[in-house]
Amino acid sequence: MTGPRYTRLVQSLPATVPFVGPETQERERGRPFAARLGANENGFGPSPRAIAAMAAAAGEVWKYGDSVSYDLRVALAARHGCTPEHIVVGEGIDGLLGYLVRLLIEPGDAVVTSDGAYPTFNYHVAGFGGVLHKVPYLNDHEDPDALLAMAEKTGAKLIYLANPDNPMGTAHPRAVIASMIERLPEGALLVLDEAYVELAPDGIEAEIAPDDPRVIRMRTFSKAHGMAGARVGYAIGARPLIQSFDKIRNHFGMCRISQAGALAAIEDRTWQAYMRLLVDGARKRIAEIARENGLTPIPSATNFVAVDCGRDGAFARAVLRELTAADVFVRMPFVAPQDRCIRISCGPDAELDLLAAALPGALARAAKG
Amino acid sequence: MTGPRYTRLVQSLPATVPFVGPETQERERGRPFAARLGANENGFGPSPRAIAAMAAAAGEVWKYGDSVSYDLRVALAARHGCTPEHIVVGEGIDGLLGYLVRLLIEPGDAVVTSDGAYPTFNYHVAGFGGVLHKVPYLNDHEDPDALLAMAEKTGAKLIYLANPDNPMGTAHPRAVIASMIERLPEGALLVLDEAYVELAPDGIEAEIAPDDPRVIRMRTFSKAHGMAGARVGYAIGARPLIQSFDKIRNHFGMCRISQAGALAAIEDRTWQAYMRLLVDGARKRIAEIARENGLTPIPSATNFVAVDCGRDGAFARAVLRELTAADVFVRMPFVAPQDRCIRISCGPDAELDLLAAALPGALARAAKG
Repeated sequence: MTGPRYTRLVQSLPATVPFVGPETQERERGRPFAARLGANENGFGPSPRAIAAMAAAAGEVWKYGDSVSYDLRVALAARHGCTPEHIVVGEGIDGLLGYLVRLLIEPGDAVVTSDGAYPTFNYHVAGFGGVLHKVPYLNDHEDPDALLAMAEKTGAKLIYLANPDNPMGTAHPRAVIASMIERLPEGALLVLDEAYVELAPDGIEAEIAPDDPRVIRMRTFSKAHGMAGARVGYAIGARPLIQSFDKIRNHFGMCRISQAGALAAIEDRTWQAYMRLLVDGARKRIAEIARENGLTPIPSATNFVAVDCGRDGAFARAVLRELTAADVFVRMPFVAPQDRCIRISCGPDAELDLLAAALPGALARAAKG
Repeated sequence: MTGPRYTRLVQSLPATVPFVGPETQERERGRPFAARLGANENGFGPSPRAIAAMAAAAGEVWKYGDSVSYDLRVALAARHGCTPEHIVVGEGIDGLLGYLVRLLIEPGDAVVTSDGAYPTFNYHVAGFGGVLHKVPYLNDHEDPDALLAMAEKTGAKLIYLANPDNPMGTAHPRAVIASMIERLPEGALLVLDEAYVELAPDGIEAEIAPDDPRVIRMRTFSKAHGMAGARVGYAIGARPLIQSFDKIRNHFGMCRISQAGALAAIEDRTWQAYMRLLVDGARKRIAEIARENGLTPIPSATNFVAVDCGRDGAFARAVLRELTAADVFVRMPFVAPQDRCIRISCGPDAELDLLAAALPGALARAAKG
């Protein structure tokens, strides 16, 4: 009896997992976290109208979801000034990134990203045999010029840029993105990950003609809309590219309850405005807590704050370990020199109170080694 | 400005969609269906406990789902007499079939299935460049001997068999499956799609050692559990094969609400027993309606009944068209000679009443041509 015959590519892949989830950590620790501030979830939660819509949809879940997410795409198109044919809805940005990489990348193809940017994108590129070329961050920002130069040099099919960035929370003004698009090498597609852009200050969100074939934008209900567990992302791009997803996507892959929740969330503009206030307040509070402890918050355009712990990665990792031991779930950048920071997600005051209480001791114990 | 550079494989793929959803048909028709009996959904709906669990989880959807679906896998392992390491949870059987094909199939690899069996499996095989070899049904059953012979001849890496079968609803006794596994060619993996098996008579559900490396079983919450829109499927197989999914799957792809609903559903054995009665009653009612109209119901081990319309595919398609025009959503097999049938999903009496009312006229109009 032999086992299955895997592809050569799969045989070469490591059994890596981009992220260890907080539930896995809780099982390993043997107790739950008291504050959940590590995964850039949004502890303020979804719109009450979205919650009500999801609860109401539970009884209708015997029906498959609409395979083309029509009503949601119509609402999103109205919001973005495009047509539904410019939008594909998928199982979170993670799912859409997987589809996009599958559409473009075959073994050996070059892809450019920043060293320390979103690991799940890298996971998908490796999973389809692409070759990643990474450029360093510049002053805690992703570096458009370096990305472009590397794309030119390697003939990259894809360039990944998140604006605002994760894990640093920094952002480029829209003019920088516009200039980057103008300077893209022929045949290079910019993946503009805008997971956090609804929470950014004015002047960050790019203005891109929907039919521009040089860029695809990724959006999500996981961050500003507080629906990470619903798995609803969408991509905006030129119609031929968007249509190509239909060749490979899991057509009936969307949860019907999530579709109903996303539709209600996108229509609740009051909650969206309130969320910007809530997140801005939490960003300021996290920055305050950092400064009270002699640390430096990096200005954030997202629902998290990277806090510079002032020393090297080993020290920040020790701080993270101590916070975890104090039941506060946070994460940190993987790559130097960004790994001098810990990354703290916005959340309600009660959770930030726990952070404030735990941080001084964590820093003291980390400093002692 | 050029567009993206797709892979050679993607360029060769047609823009096919395995199924057109009922919502799409409703938009094209300009009015809703009155009876939704076409997609093998389960109109009796999920366990009330599952509904309550999903409604309660809606407020917690700001959290990502557990990336390893731990609690659900523990409950499923207890049910199936295996360990959680023998189980992977994914975005419906459709999602898991896509992952499985990606693990094993590279361009040119042979795959064997029955002509007219599940189109979404074929879609995934084509999507990864596999070469499909199809064998005919035998007396409205999938034909294990023919599948094995074709696998031997082509060196197939994968053999697909659904037991019970869709779209015919027929089933093989477990001894036939056991014998088939014993006779598998070296290096061929049997994909045993058991989407409907909880609704089958005794003696159908296969007994397979969890660590048997020759077979992977596919299960779902979409049919017996009435949760098609939640997108929860799982695969049971040998640990190395199950672990290999971690190399490529969308780790945070599961909806948190769906996870909560599935856990409640698997624990509600009262509802499961009730569902078997409800579905059996609906099967009998559909068979009765068929016979009253001079048609022949094919004995079903599933939550649908294939009804032999007694003539050719063109006639059955005309019946289908007339039923659709009468606001009754049904589907039919795609391939001759099975396409002499229409396929009617089980549902509550109110929906079957509409079918009973519409069928005589539909048959009469179809007969007139």
